[in-house]
Amino acid sequence: MKVLVLGAGQLARMMALAGAPLNISISAYDVNSDSIVHPLTQQNLGKGLANAIADADVVTAEFEHIPLPVLAQCQQSGKFLPGETAIKAGGDRRLEKTLLDDAKVRSAAYRIVNSEADFRQAITALGLPLVFKSALAGYDGKGQWRLKRAEDATALWQQLDAFLSADPSQSIVAEQFIPFSREVSLIGARNSQGEVQVYPLTENHHVNGVLSVSLAVAGNEQLQQQAQQMFTAVANQLNYVGVLAIEFFDVNGTLLVNEIAPRVHNSGHWTQQGADVCQFEQHLRAVCGLPLGSTALVRPSLMVNILGEDKVPEQILTLPGLHLHWYGKTKRAGRKMGHINLSGATTAELKTRFEQLISVLPEAAFPELTQMAARLN
Amino acid sequence: MKVLVLGAGQLARMMALAGAPLNISISAYDVNSDSIVHPLTQQNLGKGLANAIADADVVTAEFEHIPLPVLAQCQQSGKFLPGETAIKAGGDRRLEKTLLDDAKVRSAAYRIVNSEADFRQAITALGLPLVFKSALAGYDGKGQWRLKRAEDATALWQQLDAFLSADPSQSIVAEQFIPFSREVSLIGARNSQGEVQVYPLTENHHVNGVLSVSLAVAGNEQLQQQAQQMFTAVANQLNYVGVLAIEFFDVNGTLLVNEIAPRVHNSGHWTQQGADVCQFEQHLRAVCGLPLGSTALVRPSLMVNILGEDKVPEQILTLPGLHLHWYGKTKRAGRKMGHINLSGATTAELKTRFEQLISVLPEAAFPELTQMAARLN
Repeated sequence: MKVLVLGAGQLARMMALAGAPLNISISAYDVNSDSIVHPLTQQNLGKGLANAIADADVVTAEFEHIPLPVLAQCQQSGKFLPGETAIKAGGDRRLEKTLLDDAKVRSAAYRIVNSEADFRQAITALGLPLVFKSALAGYDGKGQWRLKRAEDATALWQQLDAFLSADPSQSIVAEQFIPFSREVSLIGARNSQGEVQVYPLTENHHVNGVLSVSLAVAGNEQLQQQAQQMFTAVANQLNYVGVLAIEFFDVNGTLLVNEIAPRVHNSGHWTQQGADVCQFEQHLRAVCGLPLGSTALVRPSLMVNILGEDKVPEQILTLPGLHLHWYGKTKRAGRKMGHINLSGATTAELKTRFEQLISVLPEAAFPELTQMAARLN
Repeated sequence: MKVLVLGAGQLARMMALAGAPLNISISAYDVNSDSIVHPLTQQNLGKGLANAIADADVVTAEFEHIPLPVLAQCQQSGKFLPGETAIKAGGDRRLEKTLLDDAKVRSAAYRIVNSEADFRQAITALGLPLVFKSALAGYDGKGQWRLKRAEDATALWQQLDAFLSADPSQSIVAEQFIPFSREVSLIGARNSQGEVQVYPLTENHHVNGVLSVSLAVAGNEQLQQQAQQMFTAVANQLNYVGVLAIEFFDVNGTLLVNEIAPRVHNSGHWTQQGADVCQFEQHLRAVCGLPLGSTALVRPSLMVNILGEDKVPEQILTLPGLHLHWYGKTKRAGRKMGHINLSGATTAELKTRFEQLISVLPEAAFPELTQMAARLN
């Protein structure tokens, strides 16, 4: 099988690595250079998007911020999974909120803001504090603003007004601030027969809005069931095929959807070593019409992102249960350069290994890990 | 790091897949076409061997039947690991036998046969039955003859004489037939500091001289120690760097070396899912000067070779703990096309899963699996 992936970053790269053993070969569309490349070597394959779509058995995506004409072109081919609607819903918070409403799953109360009148009404209707998020192109904490005190409203509106004026396709989504105890995500897959397989819930720890650590949480059956029910509702609403990620706020045992990502997800990277079939292979199985695989947790596992660093102390490679995953990228401040997966036979062993890892990693580049280790019990 | 692999088959391919997450990129020298290719895509990279050696940080090999001038050229670069001596010892049974003698490890008693006089003396000195093996280019049961009865000696000599006359570089190695109870192999690595890490012993089942099933055997500490001691003696004798495989005859608990393979090995493919760090990553770590990783058994595991088939029933993908590894090759009778790795949390679970797998696989293409399943206890 030949699969064309929209986007040529680390997710396409890891799909290529997971696909090769299934004789699934991956090419990738680099949106920035408008070229088709091999996702592992980044070599330009010297053909245009139209030819690449024609050559492919299946077209899929590794991210949701894709030009609309490209999405339309892929949709028209009849090969695009999970398809235009799902990708758009992941890339536009207005569509995402409508989707969640239609699927009847809980998320923060919201208003769409396109004018000062909308802005003032949102404050009145939803109360403070509020979070304002750009409808388009917001990720990793970018395009977000908070309003805690009424007296700061006018100053904030000036910022939002400037932002909206710069791009007529934008809106702001005003959301009630959710006083969550933690963020969790559920990664799962749905195939074209409507079968759903989800991984164990993952607890996520962000630093400055960017994912730092994900931890595979097993054992909370009530929360897992709740998440799976919401996942299935969203996936069915989209008639989704492929891997889908849903981020939740956990408010003392009640989940609200924060956002959805219609693709493999950073918080599912631990599945490469921690689950029976990893999310990259599972996504390819779903979109290629192969049977879904087992999502069972093999070993308690966690993932640590490597941000803005192109080196880690070599001695971490001696830690049992540790796997290093570099993305072959050039170093840039804050850039996702790779990740570390860590597993243990038991949660206690994972904790011990995590503490050994933390003692070796430089704290400036890997902040707040100790807090996450404390949650392993 | 850039690694050039001599040989562009499935072992180089799986090295490429294991190397990518460590930012180790692999190119491969296809001996048949005398060209440098990408081991995953088989794309010709348009450069000659000399340039490829110059571009690489490290040169290594995926097989031992490499033209001597190529070995010499690689050795001269100063980048070749495990190096010319080790590769030659793996490709020439005369050198292999001398190596084993020098390392003082047990193997079958032998004589080198270049003439009828040698042949007759071998029979007298070693007794019958005897196994005659070609010194060069023998693998997967090719280039082997057996002599059980003295009255067949003259007829056999005529065959051997014709064989020797056709190639003056050949010899025959006559070996005492070992009445072994089973064949096992030990895969391990040695780094440039002389550190050795070995995997658990693997029990191997051949059909018509070709490996069919490998089973990771844990628990026989006495046999493991014996194998590890012999492994270390051979690796030290060669000042070996990289992954080395040693096949043994198990004669009621006493091991004799059958042969060595100076490379990653078919009987170590289960390590991709069954061990902490797989043999492909471990080899790259060793030759690139990175720390060796843990070789611990994560889960009881086995591997089934896919020979001469380019399809297996899709439903096997639904079995938990199953991983399919295709090599991207064109179908040819008997050709190694891929393998299936299977794991379970316990040996009992592995056995149950293996029996489920056997019930789905066509017996004609996968013979004798039931006998191997019976050994899982």
